Amino acid sequence: MSPSVGIIMGSMSDLPVMKQAAEILESFGVCYELDVVSAHRTPERMFLYARNAKERGLKIIIAGAGGAAHLPGMVASVTTLPVIGVPIKSSNSIDGWDSVLSILQMPAGVPVATVALNGAKNAGILAVQILSLMDSALADKLVQYKKDLENSVLQMSNELKQNQ
Amino acid sequence: MSPSVGIIMGSMSDLPVMKQAAEILESFGVCYELDVVSAHRTPERMFLYARNAKERGLKIIIAGAGGAAHLPGMVASVTTLPVIGVPIKSSNSIDGWDSVLSILQMPAGVPVATVALNGAKNAGILAVQILSLMDSALADKLVQYKKDLENSVLQMSNELKQNQ
Amino acid sequence: MSPSVGIIMGSMSDLPVMKQAAEILESFGVCYELDVVSAHRTPERMFLYARNAKERGLKIIIAGAGGAAHLPGMVASVTTLPVIGVPIKSSNSIDGWDSVLSILQMPAGVPVATVALNGAKNAGILAVQILSLMDSALADKLVQYKKDLENSVLQMSNELKQNQ
Amino acid sequence: MSPSVGIIMGSMSDLPVMKQAAEILESFGVCYELDVVSAHRTPERMFLYARNAKERGLKIIIAGAGGAAHLPGMVASVTTLPVIGVPIKSSNSIDGWDSVLSILQMPAGVPVATVALNGAKNAGILAVQILSLMDSALADKLVQYKKDLENSVLQMSNELKQNQ
Amino acid sequence: MSPSVGIIMGSMSDLPVMKQAAEILESFGVCYELDVVSAHRTPERMFLYARNAKERGLKIIIAGAGGAAHLPGMVASVTTLPVIGVPIKSSNSIDGWDSVLSILQMPAGVPVATVALNGAKNAGILAVQILSLMDSALADKLVQYKKDLENSVLQMSNELKQNQ
Amino acid sequence: MSPSVGIIMGSMSDLPVMKQAAEILESFGVCYELDVVSAHRTPERMFLYARNAKERGLKIIIAGAGGAAHLPGMVASVTTLPVIGVPIKSSNSIDGWDSVLSILQMPAGVPVATVALNGAKNAGILAVQILSLMDSALADKLVQYKKDLENSVLQMSNELKQNQ
Amino acid sequence: MSPSVGIIMGSMSDLPVMKQAAEILESFGVCYELDVVSAHRTPERMFLYARNAKERGLKIIIAGAGGAAHLPGMVASVTTLPVIGVPIKSSNSIDGWDSVLSILQMPAGVPVATVALNGAKNAGILAVQILSLMDSALADKLVQYKKDLENSVLQMSNELKQNQ
Amino acid sequence: MSPSVGIIMGSMSDLPVMKQAAEILESFGVCYELDVVSAHRTPERMFLYARNAKERGLKIIIAGAGGAAHLPGMVASVTTLPVIGVPIKSSNSIDGWDSVLSILQMPAGVPVATVALNGAKNAGILAVQILSLMDSALADKLVQYKKDLENSVLQMSNELKQNQ
Repeated sequence: MSPSVGIIMGSMSDLPVMKQAAEILESFGVCYELDVVSAHRTPERMFLYARNAKERGLKIIIAGAGGAAHLPGMVASVTTLPVIGVPIKSSNSIDGWDSVLSILQMPAGVPVATVALNGAKNAGILAVQILSLMDSALADKLVQYKKDLENSVLQMSNELKQNQ
Repeated sequence: MSPSVGIIMGSMSDLPVMKQAAEILESFGVCYELDVVSAHRTPERMFLYARNAKERGLKIIIAGAGGAAHLPGMVASVTTLPVIGVPIKSSNSIDGWDSVLSILQMPAGVPVATVALNGAKNAGILAVQILSLMDSALADKLVQYKKDLENSVLQMSNELKQNQ
Repeated sequence: MSPSVGIIMGSMSDLPVMKQAAEILESFGVCYELDVVSAHRTPERMFLYARNAKERGLKIIIAGAGGAAHLPGMVASVTTLPVIGVPIKSSNSIDGWDSVLSILQMPAGVPVATVALNGAKNAGILAVQILSLMDSALADKLVQYKKDLENSVLQMSNELKQNQ
Repeated sequence: MSPSVGIIMGSMSDLPVMKQAAEILESFGVCYELDVVSAHRTPERMFLYARNAKERGLKIIIAGAGGAAHLPGMVASVTTLPVIGVPIKSSNSIDGWDSVLSILQMPAGVPVATVALNGAKNAGILAVQILSLMDSALADKLVQYKKDLENSVLQMSNELKQNQ
Repeated sequence: MSPSVGIIMGSMSDLPVMKQAAEILESFGVCYELDVVSAHRTPERMFLYARNAKERGLKIIIAGAGGAAHLPGMVASVTTLPVIGVPIKSSNSIDGWDSVLSILQMPAGVPVATVALNGAKNAGILAVQILSLMDSALADKLVQYKKDLENSVLQMSNELKQNQ
Repeated sequence: MSPSVGIIMGSMSDLPVMKQAAEILESFGVCYELDVVSAHRTPERMFLYARNAKERGLKIIIAGAGGAAHLPGMVASVTTLPVIGVPIKSSNSIDGWDSVLSILQMPAGVPVATVALNGAKNAGILAVQILSLMDSALADKLVQYKKDLENSVLQMSNELKQNQ
Repeated sequence: MSPSVGIIMGSMSDLPVMKQAAEILESFGVCYELDVVSAHRTPERMFLYARNAKERGLKIIIAGAGGAAHLPGMVASVTTLPVIGVPIKSSNSIDGWDSVLSILQMPAGVPVATVALNGAKNAGILAVQILSLMDSALADKLVQYKKDLENSVLQMSNELKQNQ
Repeated sequence: MSPSVGIIMGSMSDLPVMKQAAEILESFGVCYELDVVSAHRTPERMFLYARNAKERGLKIIIAGAGGAAHLPGMVASVTTLPVIGVPIKSSNSIDGWDSVLSILQMPAGVPVATVALNGAKNAGILAVQILSLMDSALADKLVQYKKDLENSVLQMSNELKQNQ
């Protein structure tokens, strides 16, 4: 099956965060690809990646980056696919503010759907939510996912009460 | 035609920002509805809105709010539809940081696709990008939109050169 | 005895902070209950909790949450009881700013009595101060508590002088 | 009738903000007093005010201040009454951050119930919520107040729909 | 004469700031070109601009942008010429922090020589300083420029003393 | 000899920072006293300390505190002696911003001479600089201290060159 | 009479703020001088100013600057006199944070007594407090000044009560 | 060969960061010198260093400093050579903001080419980029360096794909 979500990151050091997006897609049975594409070190490759994404069958791109994080925004400038940006708190980051603002504050005309700092898991869920608009089986799984979230809290609640 | 995008805001004072989302949807021929739904003043109504959104045929919810901006996140906690959050720099805001962080920093499991401060226009475009995954005519319009963006810059470039 | 203070938190990971509120209430002999109630994962349960709080005899709700911390504000939107909010510095928080601003910057009409970052102990004391308006024995204990605070400083002062 | 809420502020320049607390108390029929008490310019007077507050029949103190805002915290260090702090964005403030942090970040043992920047109206409502624990007529008014809030949003919603 | 400095900006709205770089270059007799090149709206054009800059004889690129300011960093990713970045405080900027951090916090391997917020004048002087390494006449002018700066302060000093 | 500098801190946990002020005074032969005086837990004692300081022969007060740091400013509100404030980065501080702003941003009329975060050593040196205005032997020691600072850098410089 | 306080600023544009220091010194009868001395545009002059200050009879230097504000710290690096730093919120400042941090965060060994943003008035009072250690008449005036501050608040209090 | 780049830092504690600039210059075969020069502890030496730099044959100065980081800006005030500033996150720094803002926010007339927090490596590359304007062999090495950067990413990409 051809991947419908492309997960890219600026460096291998982003993998521990970004693989959480992959894991969530896997758990929902969504086909994805995972790659290292750097806006600053492989600008041409990034352009080609973004330019060909739609033709290659990708529906959504999840891009994670730290510091002056240009990858999500630059990919969004080339493709018309929805791009989900994951700010990553890298070493030498100024507390994550740099990556958050570099990804979030895109100019009018070129949106990036930004999630929380290191929020790759939510990037994956957001991708599933978008895909589920075209896939009712996926939509049903999301309903179940929400129930599981709810149950995990109820279980915590029970545990806490038993320990009181 | 039934609306596929619901645009909601916490207060009428958010309208000048949020109507930019409506205008962009209109320009793309996407049917939307526009409403005031407050997380803090009409919590029950907000719940019902979020709960019934999918059944009513909505595909995407765009929610804008300022200050301790809970509307996008709370709507996202109830529905499985993708929710796009627009942080608004309201009066008495602490420079917009409060609305940005209240919307962006959602916990794992419940994403909000956050756009820039006052970035309602981009919220509209992001909604179009998502809908265009299911609508090739819309996808074509997005390609044209990107060309128009490009042309607007080329025109500026020409103007600037003529004035030198 | 039925609890007069409800302490709720968004996740079990908030317990190490939030149990400090419980401990202070216990030391003052104030009856409380402790539960995990998530705004984002159990929105309906949160609504019911807030809606029924007053009828169930609760007088004050202490709610702690991290990141985009919506629990205190959403509870406050449903109940007319005073709600005390405790911002928690969770992992992936942007230095605690997100939870502080999400709880503090509530819009006009729906206050949350916010205490310091991780300040659950002070949330407990504030609850005691409020309850002591209706309970002179409790008020006397608060006077004693202030004296104990004072004495702890005098003791430090003595220690320091003896070590000089 | 003797006042049950004391509203104090560090300077006359804080009055435009702080009178919103007075107005809300007035609308709920809660008796209050309004005074200028400066932590830095009248420290002794502030001490006496805080020391005598309870004896004089005050139940709650609302204190507003800007910049290095010490008034709410210092009053709270002297009295056992609940103190509600209103950070004010004064001229020469660093965007309000100074007053917010000076009021919010109180050490363990001495809470200040902090509301939003310039949030004097919410300080008034919080005071009413606390007083309503001892006054069921006031509690009923709060229920009505919440309904009015709700209705104001429904009205906005109707207006908006009629203008579409 | 062919330009040795290329001044580019993301939008015509950046011109009031960026023309200060042009003016300083003009005053030093340095040949420059001025253009609108948007990273997000004309990504391909930006790539070509950066790719061909050196061949076309440019020695330095001054790039100004606001918000999620990717222009300076992306140009630097393509060319080996020194790139000077000018953060611009655009409307809807979060107090300029977004553009400052998006330009400054470049990853190892791809520097951008960042100047102060709206500091286009200094970008121009920095370009002159670099060019003067290869042009002793320019270096002499810089010495004179520093003397003029000094004299402007001495004149202020005299004025102030005469007014006392 | 009676102490001319009073070093006070809000809690024993501030001692590791504040003793650096004591050590520098000791090295200059300036007599000092060291005490724990809490604005929030021993307000009356703080008042008395500040009120009696001048009569007791103190010339300068160095006050250190963290979080909502009111000690330096409140002492300054009571005494006419110069007060040097040391912001301390305590646990649960929001990165030190709270103590810095609570101490620095004093209103017109009541200055606190603020030094860097955790800068107790500089507080001690500043006290010596002030005292040296009345004590030429102390002034000579300061000249020597500056030479020692200079020499320490020259030594580093030599070391570095030998290791190249 | 020879001036005992030197007030310097980096630019004439700082005069509206810095003259408040002059006015307060004048009101206390303290002799001062006022000059424009720029760290960045007249570095040598700044060095000479700092180097000769003590010999010329100055006792205290008040230095105000905005942006990357190096004047107070550099003067302090040359002289052993106490230096009071006034951060100024200049145009293009990042909300004043740049000048505050550039002045406050001096390294160990070289203190600057920093006052609030634009707090030149307090710089003047701090200078008076220091000088009053050697001048009992000045000390008496400070006591009176504190009384006047107190009275100004009492007057506001009376006004407010009469208007209720 | 006489050094063309002078790398200076305020303290030996900055060496672990600043030697990364030295290493990159070494790898490009650019001759440099490395020294400790403190703006605050050896102001005169700093002046002489800056004053003589050009005559001694230096073409570029790289200056690193933490906290209230005045070294880069003060050196730039004396010399007409391009100065590259490296903000360093020292202990007691307020998250690096102090050094970033002290170096970046230079006033008009005196630029410092600022790189990322702890970005000494990029300072070295920027110096090479500037020098390569006069040295085509160096320019060729930069082209190769960019290719190496690209290849390092391609290698990561391959690794990642093989591990999937």
